[in-house]
Amino acid sequence: MPKKAAELVGGIDIGGTKLHAVVADQQGRVLGRARKKSKAERGFAPLMRRAAEVLGDACRTAGVKRPRLAAVGVGAPSPVLPDGTAVRAPNLGWENVPLVETLARALKLPVHAANDCDAGTFGELVFGAARGASTAIGLFMGTGLGGSIVIDGKLVTGANHKAAELGHMVVVVGGRRCGCGNRGCLEAYASKAGMLRRIRHHVLCEGHQTLLGELLDGDFSAIRSSVLAEAYGAEDPLTVETLHEAADVLGAAVGSLLTMLGPEVVVLGGGVLEQLGRALLPRIESAAARSTFPRSAFGDSELRLSRLGDDAVALGAVALALRRTGDGR
Amino acid sequence: MPKKAAELVGGIDIGGTKLHAVVADQQGRVLGRARKKSKAERGFAPLMRRAAEVLGDACRTAGVKRPRLAAVGVGAPSPVLPDGTAVRAPNLGWENVPLVETLARALKLPVHAANDCDAGTFGELVFGAARGASTAIGLFMGTGLGGSIVIDGKLVTGANHKAAELGHMVVVVGGRRCGCGNRGCLEAYASKAGMLRRIRHHVLCEGHQTLLGELLDGDFSAIRSSVLAEAYGAEDPLTVETLHEAADVLGAAVGSLLTMLGPEVVVLGGGVLEQLGRALLPRIESAAARSTFPRSAFGDSELRLSRLGDDAVALGAVALALRRTGDGR
Repeated sequence: MPKKAAELVGGIDIGGTKLHAVVADQQGRVLGRARKKSKAERGFAPLMRRAAEVLGDACRTAGVKRPRLAAVGVGAPSPVLPDGTAVRAPNLGWENVPLVETLARALKLPVHAANDCDAGTFGELVFGAARGASTAIGLFMGTGLGGSIVIDGKLVTGANHKAAELGHMVVVVGGRRCGCGNRGCLEAYASKAGMLRRIRHHVLCEGHQTLLGELLDGDFSAIRSSVLAEAYGAEDPLTVETLHEAADVLGAAVGSLLTMLGPEVVVLGGGVLEQLGRALLPRIESAAARSTFPRSAFGDSELRLSRLGDDAVALGAVALALRRTGDGR
Repeated sequence: MPKKAAELVGGIDIGGTKLHAVVADQQGRVLGRARKKSKAERGFAPLMRRAAEVLGDACRTAGVKRPRLAAVGVGAPSPVLPDGTAVRAPNLGWENVPLVETLARALKLPVHAANDCDAGTFGELVFGAARGASTAIGLFMGTGLGGSIVIDGKLVTGANHKAAELGHMVVVVGGRRCGCGNRGCLEAYASKAGMLRRIRHHVLCEGHQTLLGELLDGDFSAIRSSVLAEAYGAEDPLTVETLHEAADVLGAAVGSLLTMLGPEVVVLGGGVLEQLGRALLPRIESAAARSTFPRSAFGDSELRLSRLGDDAVALGAVALALRRTGDGR
C-alpha cells in the first residue's frame, strides 16, 4: 500500500484495567488520545466493543474520522500468533481468542496485533529512547516484569511465538518462588508483585516496621508505583532495601542480556521506573557492568530510560502497523 | 559464485592445543581430516602456517589438491569481526589479529572465519543434530562453557560482534565466582573449570575423599572428560554430586533460554557431554522443564545431543563458508 504523507494510524493498548488509544502520524506524533476502563470481566466481545469506542474517542480528540485511518495496531498482554490469535491473557480471561479478526470486523480497518511488551519495545525503537538502533531490548518493571528483544529491526518471538518472556529468565537457580510457579525468575525480584511479596514477608513474618504500613493502610495486596516512590523518597529502610535489591538483580539481568545478545540499547521503563528510574539507574548500571562479559562489552551498549511513558504500547502498535502496512504483510 | 556439484570446501578448527581440519562436500560429507598440535606459544604467524599445513594434510587424505577447494572456513576461540579480525583469544595470545587476511594470503583461497562455538552451532544446524531447524541454540560443555544462538538461520553476534557468550549468562546473582571475574556465570557451575574448582574446594578445604584423587594422581589442575566419566561410572559421590549440580544448573539455563528465545532445538555438546550426555540428559531436561515459562513452551523445543563430535567446529566453518560463498558475501 503506497503511503501518503497524511496517513494516520490508530494504536490501542489493551490492559487488564484500562484501554488507552492514540491516533498518530507516521512520525509518531500523537494527534489524539483517549482512555477507558477495560471492564474485562464482562467478556471478550464487550471488551472489543469498548476498544473500538476508545479508538473512536481518540479519533474525535484528533479531529479525524475513523475511516480515514490507514490501519490500527493493538498491543495486548498475551502472546499473539501470526494469524492474529491471542493465545493466553490471564488478566483478561482470554484463551485463544481471535483478536485481530474480531477487531478488524468491528473497525472495518486493517488491524495488526502484538504482545504489549513487544509493542512497547518496538515503539521505543521506532519513536522513543532507542530511536536509530536496530538491536535493542526493552524491560518494563510494573506489577510484573515484561521484556522484549529486537534483533536487526525484528521482534524476537521464538519459533513458538511465545518467547521473550524476559521476566521469567532465571537469575537465581533455586531462588525465590515466582508467581508463575518457577523459582528464581527475574520477576520474583524486580517487579511490584515480587517486591510486595518480600515486603509482606518482612512485615508479617518478621515484624519489620515500614512507612508503607501507613501509606497502604495496612493493605499489602497491591501498591501503586507512586506510593513506592513516596516511601523511597522518605528513606523508609525496608522500601529502600527492597528497591535496591530489585535494581541490583535487574542490573545483573541486564548485564547477562548484554553478554548474550549485545544490543545497542536497553530501554528501561514501566510504572516503577517511570517514578524511580532516575534514582535507580546508576545502581542498575553498576550491577550491569559487573555482570557483562567481556567487561568491555558493557561500553558497547547504552541503558536508557523509556521516553514514551503511557503511550509506549499504543505508539508501538502504531509503529508495527506502519511497518506491516509498508511491508505489505 | 555458481556452485558445481563437486564443489569441496575446507574447514579448520583452531584450538588452544590442537588444529583439526576437514575437507567436505556441500552435504557435509567429510572426505578427509587431519590433526596437528597448535603450538600456539610460538606466535600467530607460525600458527597460521601450521593451519595451512593441517588443511594440506586433510586435502591429501581426501585425495584433492588444495587449489581445487572453493573456499575455506575457520573457527577460532575468539570473537571475529566482519572484516576477519580475531578480537581476543587468551588461549592463543591473540589480540586483534588479521585472521582471515593472513590465512587467505597463505592459502590463496577465499577464507571465512567465525567464533568456534558459533561455527559449531551452525554446523549442527546445517549438518548435525539441529538439521532442518532455523532457530537453535548450541551449548558446549568442555573446559569452559561455550554457546551460540541462531535465529531465522542467522548467527546472533550482537551489534558489537562479541555476544552470545552464553557461558557467562548470570544464573545465580551474587553466586559462585567465575574464571572471568564475574559472579554466578553458567560456566562457574557447568564446565570442567567450574566443576574442578568445586571439587578442589571439597578435597582441599573440607577433606572429602574422592576416587578422582587416585585417577588424577593428586593433581587437580586439569581433568579429561573421560576421567570424569570414569569416576561417574564408578559412582564416586563427589563426582556424581558435582556433575548433577552442573546438569541441574545447565538445565535451568536451558529453560531460561527457551523462555527468552523459543528455539526449535537446543544442541548439547562439548567434551563432557560427549562422554556423559546420555547419562545426564534426563536430568538436564527435567531441570529445563521446571525453568521454562510458560511451562507449555518446554514442549515446543527439543533438546538433542550434538552429532558432529570432534568435527563440529570444522564442519560448521565449512557450512559458513558455503553459506557466505552462496550469498556472495
